[in-house]
Amino acid sequence: MIYKIESDENKIVKYVNKLKNPKYIKEEKKFIIEGFHLLEMANLEDIDFVLTLEKLDLDSSINQYIVNEKIMKKLSINKSFSKVITVCKIRNNQKIEGDLILYLDNLQDPGNIGTILRTALAFNIKTIISTSLVTFYNQKTIQSSQGAIFHLNLLKGDDKILFGLKNDYKLIATSLNENTIDLREFNWPNKVVLIVGNEGNGVSKEILNMADATIKIPIANIDSLNVGIATAILIYNFKTTK
Amino acid sequence: MIYKIESDENKIVKYVNKLKNPKYIKEEKKFIIEGFHLLEMANLEDIDFVLTLEKLDLDSSINQYIVNEKIMKKLSINKSFSKVITVCKIRNNQKIEGDLILYLDNLQDPGNIGTILRTALAFNIKTIISTSLVTFYNQKTIQSSQGAIFHLNLLKGDDKILFGLKNDYKLIATSLNENTIDLREFNWPNKVVLIVGNEGNGVSKEILNMADATIKIPIANIDSLNVGIATAILIYNFKTTK
Repeated sequence: MIYKIESDENKIVKYVNKLKNPKYIKEEKKFIIEGFHLLEMANLEDIDFVLTLEKLDLDSSINQYIVNEKIMKKLSINKSFSKVITVCKIRNNQKIEGDLILYLDNLQDPGNIGTILRTALAFNIKTIISTSLVTFYNQKTIQSSQGAIFHLNLLKGDDKILFGLKNDYKLIATSLNENTIDLREFNWPNKVVLIVGNEGNGVSKEILNMADATIKIPIANIDSLNVGIATAILIYNFKTTK
Repeated sequence: MIYKIESDENKIVKYVNKLKNPKYIKEEKKFIIEGFHLLEMANLEDIDFVLTLEKLDLDSSINQYIVNEKIMKKLSINKSFSKVITVCKIRNNQKIEGDLILYLDNLQDPGNIGTILRTALAFNIKTIISTSLVTFYNQKTIQSSQGAIFHLNLLKGDDKILFGLKNDYKLIATSLNENTIDLREFNWPNKVVLIVGNEGNGVSKEILNMADATIKIPIANIDSLNVGIATAILIYNFKTTK
């Protein structure tokens, strides 16, 4: 159905505006994406409804709300306002599949998380677990992911879930500690949960204790690599040296 | 020497404020960094002077201007204002050295450029060439680089310089075109200029025509990797598979 909204006091506009807040993303299990590129990346079942300046050629099951520029400017987080904003549903993609699972331990930066999702999809990784589910649905995460979030199983994780995964997978954590295996000397197991950690503090002690092995990328001159960079090098290494 | 500045109309304050503008960075050959971590990463010869809330324990040759919070808030680009702002000199580091040179063809995103510099330093790369020198000295670039800019030779490049490098180096460009070598089948030459391209358009046609070979990282499901990610995978591959 096509509806027209004239007022920025309309309840649909207010609802969308609320979804900028992580608290409401969690409660409503909905999130917003801006622009045509991300809308194209979304699956039909991801989409709840769209706000748009002009009627779009979309599946007829999708409700379209035609709004004016003033409303778009109010809702858009991008500097130049978007021509389309889509409200999407957080789907229950709880499947754990594939020979390489990523586990993000308390990652904070949406740009890093998004880049990791984009990289993961590019290398056929299917499942990503994060200690915070809502970080997947931050607008900046989604932008950096280039829409990869719509094609991955995204799960919320904790130490218990990680422990359960030990039945089928080896837990391999990154660490800068001394007794850590240099990536060049590491033989990847067949099925791996690769654990990467917080930008400032790395992987937590509890998880390091639980891990089957810890590895590090050999670097010089500087304390650490960006976590997105480190994850990408490890994924490529896993996929090509096994 | 230690000086005290009370007014935000002071000419030093105005001078520092101007250095937020790329035009003045170019003209003055100066740039600003915020915070203690980056100041620690700088070499003595990089530093022109500091603005600080409290006298710092620095080499006595460095002029310190003690300022108040109001001035810091005015000058700081970070949300929470910095306690120290340092004005640095763009040095003439024109040396081309090492077996791997990076060439950034029209990269735009400061976060990407900074991450590439951080990664480069971590893998002992010495020289980075960019088609735009000023992008190295953008505040966001410097932050993402984690101070790596102070330990690299940073040069401005163009097609002529690139052509000159062909005497000593093989030019290897990334490309998503069809007749491009898959990284898994690529044998790296001994001395390489690795060329990576603009976030939207990739490496320019002119440079692709000049290149000795074009390579691509095998990916699926998505158009491309983030340029910082792709560069890191290529650097690690060069450093470990030669």
